[in-house]
Amino acid sequence: MHKSRLAGFIIDCQTDDLDGAAKFWTQALGYTLRAPQSPAEADLYRTLETGPGGLHIEVQQVEHPSRVHLDIETDDIEAEVQRLEKLGARRVKQLHTWWVMEAPTGQRFCVVRPQSPDLAAKGNVWD
Amino acid sequence: MHKSRLAGFIIDCQTDDLDGAAKFWTQALGYTLRAPQSPAEADLYRTLETGPGGLHIEVQQVEHPSRVHLDIETDDIEAEVQRLEKLGARRVKQLHTWWVMEAPTGQRFCVVRPQSPDLAAKGNVWD
Repeated sequence: MHKSRLAGFIIDCQTDDLDGAAKFWTQALGYTLRAPQSPAEADLYRTLETGPGGLHIEVQQVEHPSRVHLDIETDDIEAEVQRLEKLGARRVKQLHTWWVMEAPTGQRFCVVRPQSPDLAAKGNVWD
Repeated sequence: MHKSRLAGFIIDCQTDDLDGAAKFWTQALGYTLRAPQSPAEADLYRTLETGPGGLHIEVQQVEHPSRVHLDIETDDIEAEVQRLEKLGARRVKQLHTWWVMEAPTGQRFCVVRPQSPDLAAKGNVWD
């Protein structure tokens, strides 16, 4: 048995100006920025402050074309990846602690470790 | 003065099998489907049931390459589009009641009419 749920989404920006990208998206969506929690986070990510129960939303500096991708959080990455493979998704590559996958409909998404305390209470339970 | 907020996101699927696409995404994210509220909705959209306070999430059949796009809901489309233009976004095309826009970081997104009762209480207020 494991749990998973939609954690949120990442706004992938092909840019050399991560702060400028984050400025646009915070103002467009009406959020503030959360202080980075590590130097590694500060290097490539800006996290939007969406409040308690809010989705996890990050602006990420990337080298591929800009897009938006979804993140699924889980307490068991391998079990969740296998569940999604049975639904028709495929593994693309493993990065650090997460897996990049591709849906049968073509979108890339990531399977990541728990991003919020809500997973335990609100996660879907899979046998 | 007008209001806007992130309404949710649309999972654009380049497919002839909208029901198959919706089946994958409901199972992947652990949601059920909401009954279509009009024949027009049933034609191209499947709406996920995300519960009270949840984001508005739809699976849409499209002809362009698959992607995920964000929707911003507002009580004044023209005022919101002009606000976003000042932040650096540009108008792409008007469709029915909404505007397709492009962020300065390249992602397409839509400015749409209110999707939820939460806009009045939780929307950002812009002068």
